[in-house]
Amino acid sequence: MIIIMEKTATQDNIQAVMNILKEHGFRAILHEGAVHTVIDALGDKTSLSPDRLDAMEGVSHVKLIREPYRMASRDRKPEDTVIEFDNGVKIGGANRPVFMVGPCSVEDDYEGLLQVALAAKEMGCQFLRGGAFKPRTSPYDFDGLGEKALKYLAKAKEETGLLVVTELMDSSDLDLVCEYADVIQIGARNMQNFRLLKSVGKCSKPVVLKRGPASTIKEFLLAAEHIMYNGNEKVILCERGIKGFDSSYTRNVLDISAIPVIKKYSHLPVIVDPSHGTGQRYLIEPMAKAGLVAGADGVMVEVHHNPAQALSDGKQSLSIPQFKEVFTKLNSIIDVLHLEKSMSLPTVE
Amino acid sequence: MIIIMEKTATQDNIQAVMNILKEHGFRAILHEGAVHTVIDALGDKTSLSPDRLDAMEGVSHVKLIREPYRMASRDRKPEDTVIEFDNGVKIGGANRPVFMVGPCSVEDDYEGLLQVALAAKEMGCQFLRGGAFKPRTSPYDFDGLGEKALKYLAKAKEETGLLVVTELMDSSDLDLVCEYADVIQIGARNMQNFRLLKSVGKCSKPVVLKRGPASTIKEFLLAAEHIMYNGNEKVILCERGIKGFDSSYTRNVLDISAIPVIKKYSHLPVIVDPSHGTGQRYLIEPMAKAGLVAGADGVMVEVHHNPAQALSDGKQSLSIPQFKEVFTKLNSIIDVLHLEKSMSLPTVE
Amino acid sequence: MIIIMEKTATQDNIQAVMNILKEHGFRAILHEGAVHTVIDALGDKTSLSPDRLDAMEGVSHVKLIREPYRMASRDRKPEDTVIEFDNGVKIGGANRPVFMVGPCSVEDDYEGLLQVALAAKEMGCQFLRGGAFKPRTSPYDFDGLGEKALKYLAKAKEETGLLVVTELMDSSDLDLVCEYADVIQIGARNMQNFRLLKSVGKCSKPVVLKRGPASTIKEFLLAAEHIMYNGNEKVILCERGIKGFDSSYTRNVLDISAIPVIKKYSHLPVIVDPSHGTGQRYLIEPMAKAGLVAGADGVMVEVHHNPAQALSDGKQSLSIPQFKEVFTKLNSIIDVLHLEKSMSLPTVE
Amino acid sequence: MIIIMEKTATQDNIQAVMNILKEHGFRAILHEGAVHTVIDALGDKTSLSPDRLDAMEGVSHVKLIREPYRMASRDRKPEDTVIEFDNGVKIGGANRPVFMVGPCSVEDDYEGLLQVALAAKEMGCQFLRGGAFKPRTSPYDFDGLGEKALKYLAKAKEETGLLVVTELMDSSDLDLVCEYADVIQIGARNMQNFRLLKSVGKCSKPVVLKRGPASTIKEFLLAAEHIMYNGNEKVILCERGIKGFDSSYTRNVLDISAIPVIKKYSHLPVIVDPSHGTGQRYLIEPMAKAGLVAGADGVMVEVHHNPAQALSDGKQSLSIPQFKEVFTKLNSIIDVLHLEKSMSLPTVE
Repeated sequence: MIIIMEKTATQDNIQAVMNILKEHGFRAILHEGAVHTVIDALGDKTSLSPDRLDAMEGVSHVKLIREPYRMASRDRKPEDTVIEFDNGVKIGGANRPVFMVGPCSVEDDYEGLLQVALAAKEMGCQFLRGGAFKPRTSPYDFDGLGEKALKYLAKAKEETGLLVVTELMDSSDLDLVCEYADVIQIGARNMQNFRLLKSVGKCSKPVVLKRGPASTIKEFLLAAEHIMYNGNEKVILCERGIKGFDSSYTRNVLDISAIPVIKKYSHLPVIVDPSHGTGQRYLIEPMAKAGLVAGADGVMVEVHHNPAQALSDGKQSLSIPQFKEVFTKLNSIIDVLHLEKSMSLPTVE
Repeated sequence: MIIIMEKTATQDNIQAVMNILKEHGFRAILHEGAVHTVIDALGDKTSLSPDRLDAMEGVSHVKLIREPYRMASRDRKPEDTVIEFDNGVKIGGANRPVFMVGPCSVEDDYEGLLQVALAAKEMGCQFLRGGAFKPRTSPYDFDGLGEKALKYLAKAKEETGLLVVTELMDSSDLDLVCEYADVIQIGARNMQNFRLLKSVGKCSKPVVLKRGPASTIKEFLLAAEHIMYNGNEKVILCERGIKGFDSSYTRNVLDISAIPVIKKYSHLPVIVDPSHGTGQRYLIEPMAKAGLVAGADGVMVEVHHNPAQALSDGKQSLSIPQFKEVFTKLNSIIDVLHLEKSMSLPTVE
Repeated sequence: MIIIMEKTATQDNIQAVMNILKEHGFRAILHEGAVHTVIDALGDKTSLSPDRLDAMEGVSHVKLIREPYRMASRDRKPEDTVIEFDNGVKIGGANRPVFMVGPCSVEDDYEGLLQVALAAKEMGCQFLRGGAFKPRTSPYDFDGLGEKALKYLAKAKEETGLLVVTELMDSSDLDLVCEYADVIQIGARNMQNFRLLKSVGKCSKPVVLKRGPASTIKEFLLAAEHIMYNGNEKVILCERGIKGFDSSYTRNVLDISAIPVIKKYSHLPVIVDPSHGTGQRYLIEPMAKAGLVAGADGVMVEVHHNPAQALSDGKQSLSIPQFKEVFTKLNSIIDVLHLEKSMSLPTVE
Repeated sequence: MIIIMEKTATQDNIQAVMNILKEHGFRAILHEGAVHTVIDALGDKTSLSPDRLDAMEGVSHVKLIREPYRMASRDRKPEDTVIEFDNGVKIGGANRPVFMVGPCSVEDDYEGLLQVALAAKEMGCQFLRGGAFKPRTSPYDFDGLGEKALKYLAKAKEETGLLVVTELMDSSDLDLVCEYADVIQIGARNMQNFRLLKSVGKCSKPVVLKRGPASTIKEFLLAAEHIMYNGNEKVILCERGIKGFDSSYTRNVLDISAIPVIKKYSHLPVIVDPSHGTGQRYLIEPMAKAGLVAGADGVMVEVHHNPAQALSDGKQSLSIPQFKEVFTKLNSIIDVLHLEKSMSLPTVE
């Protein structure tokens, strides 16, 4: 890291920084500039936090050279992480993108859920998604059926063979959710609920981690790092839109470029959620396509057997016939992308 | 609410909306415009969610007239909420602003903590703040001493009489934290951890709820609503900075105008945290002043007995002598504001 | 529009609003709610600005039903605008996407420019882009060759037949730029330079209008409206990235969903600029693809014969061989999209 | 500056960077780290742009140590700039904050303008502000009276002695505006209209430069640098709100902390505009106070003789009696601040 001193820093200030760096085993090199003095420090940041240096007298700021995440970093593991399930489904790397399909929340109508699951199965999707516990901005909104929903999902899995993705909202529900889910979802608003990250870090199921609406890519990867650091390396990152300044037309700004950026800096698989990312049904198709051509390893999309009656997120859900149409078009795009990969066309670095 | 139909909406679409409104007891008035048809709906939104209407075929969007929070709204309760403690300390309304002072995290040095607490007491502050459980962006950072920290805080309370404010990160720690804390803090990154909000909603201690870095004022008040709806009306809102596009100079953008805005729309007390809001020691004084003149009912400020050695947030902590200087200047400003209030000068609406 | 009165509004306040509405020929309907009084106003907003109502005593706020742009609106003109050039090139509608290719700024090396132009021609591109007048954040940076650059562009046009796109920075240069350019570009930082918009509104050349980094879609379309209102309907909108909170990895957030949103609300053609939108060479290919699948009518991309020596924006420029590779892959995507269109697959509304 | 190489950079890549640095007279020091190679470069960046290095093969990114602005920097000129007018009025440094008061746009009602000017004079304000040329988001809005407005301002100056502040929108109007104005205002949307900056850089009148709604502090100071570099060092910076994600309650987020940040990094005077910064009349008083306690050298505030009839910005204008009330309260705050200054209380750095 590089420590930039204030113009007004005294020789004592500078010496104090040099001393603490040496104490912690850093190699420190001093450059006295015309205006600012700058110190290069080479060594292991786990032993001395940049924040501590930043707080010292006479220090203007500290710049880091390396990214603060480690296990999630492609520097540490250059090849793509591929997550494999018992039934042979794989996410990441050179595998064909997967689809996670289903209603925002599981409602008290098993037949409706089953219709969606059967359609997903018919089209060749791999995952059924649905919320049992729903985080809701207002306490007056429907917040999920709880265990009943989990049972419905399990039943639909039995009938279709689809893997189940569902959200965990609190560490106290971990065992319950693990009993039914194949993949545990951490919602965007819980991306920095560090206790929750720790608890899924200690379980063995793959985790879909959704990006917080105001989180930088660094914060997102550090949230994944929390899970990995606690023992679970099976993390799937999900871009689902960031807070923008214009909410007249879309709920969020779906940050498509985050997909290739993350793939450059991390080996973890990345999926895209155009339903939450836009909040608008008519934007699901173009934005799912955009995510796929930008390199997404999968798409999560809300499908409801009767969107106009949905208890949550109906506006951004596809009906079953709409889903089939959209899915067909997405597949044509995926075919081209796969042809490209198999021809091994070179890529601009 | 007002339902704006798509230009392409059919008569059947319009009729379907009118029908569902009537079913739910709304009075619905149809305006057929040159381009759009618009439906006014007067009635009780708890019985029919705007989201459900928004998802219907032919609906362009739904506009709300009233705010979605109720218990937190000044419409429901015009007079300021004042929260009173056993020792007579009061927050809110016409009371003099309070101060919550202490280190970011409680470290394993009781004497240091005590020095800060004694200085706070000497200056006339009412609260000692300090983290026992710390949310940290990186898993490699110090995340708090846990119960040991709570015991230190209790000890310092015994010696000084200051009330204790400390953060709760997970509902499983609720009983432990309640045993030691006079005020429970919910951190910015947990503002939409709805399970945590529910759990503090069921306890009797006042809650400091920090605004999430990407949360709108509506989302902030709805988070308070979650706590109130679950039974605890003693909520203190804390503005601590929102995510901005320029992080070169400050960690966040401290949104000072949120203070008078919230005070217009809600009766709850509002405090300001210039330490987290800016991340820079030299900005604490001007931004604490700014918060106070804008109407804040209190200031939360990080003070450390040795900022350069702090395990977290040293850069934004005041030393004890700095705190005394700043506090003196803030008091001069408060004196003027109180004079103004007591003279009952009129206010522009 | 809908006028929502303050809870505290008096009967006189309400009457004053009703009166002014009637004076201006509006049909005004009063709803007295339990909390707020609401007034529906149906009529022509050109005769009475919502701002004026908003400023009246007792008015809380005014909500608009219709979009404020008119000439740019798809409501007014449902079919896509297609812009056609003398040489038969067309932008918009069902036409194959066009490419605008060239260096950020034209430098004093005609041979370099020609190499780029010849490569563009060879690949089947239609436009050569290059800056003669460059807006630069710092006064110490290279700001363009001026007329010399325009002459170079004209010469390259002569040799290749490519149409020329170049930026106009000030209305005083309008005649000069028009002499050489086939398309006039208005840069992002001038999107709300209304005098400049007015001046290009009075000329006959098509205009590429870049979206300002903090402009909402409504502001963007209103900027186009300024040009159209002054007489020039040949406006091509260009999405080139908005300001985000994370500038560590990309210069801007390329707002891909803006493309299908604009196409829903406006009939104007939309192109995408992945070079400025990301500021990173490796992101040009995925983000150009993303723009195309989301519906863009063209791509503007920076290509330099020697990016490492470029006087501006080298980091985000492709070299000539890189451009050829990327262009080939983009064409495969375009082929699928065109197949889809010609098969007339239905679209989700 | 510091050049961080890609992990995959070759020895040739590194050598190429070292060579170009030496060619341009930089002292270059190479650190080969475990993962990344880092090059320290000490020298004069005017001779070699960081962008050029950033575009070289194998370079990951370039970090700057020093700020890119020079003339605007406090490093170059530690003492505050004070701007003095012929009538003895001074802005900046230890001088009492000034007030710039008047309608958003000058309307065709000289008596109304005069009433405002007389009230401003009576209260001890120094400047009359008012727009003759108005930038308007929509082409359908009132855009100013032009020269007639300038003549009205001049007449009101004659009757009151107030100095005149008015906006310049296009360099072609420079002579006209200079004839009437004592201070030329550059609007927020023109902050990066570099031709306009250049033109006011060549005139001798002080300039109020408003911060663009999406501009970082660095971009803001570089815009000032454009004016200074062209010869005019009399620049007054004006914070007037940045684009935020929540426009339900305020038009912009008034970035109060920008004031002390700019004062730390630049010697130029800074004023605050709570009218545009919030768009709400009731927020003018608290936010003007907030700006003043944060160190502003002046306040610009919209006052209209009849806000409900204003042709622009009525919602955010004070009436004359409201202005008098607010002004009185602001003066009490200023008195405390001045007492503080004169007692020379120490400041936290």
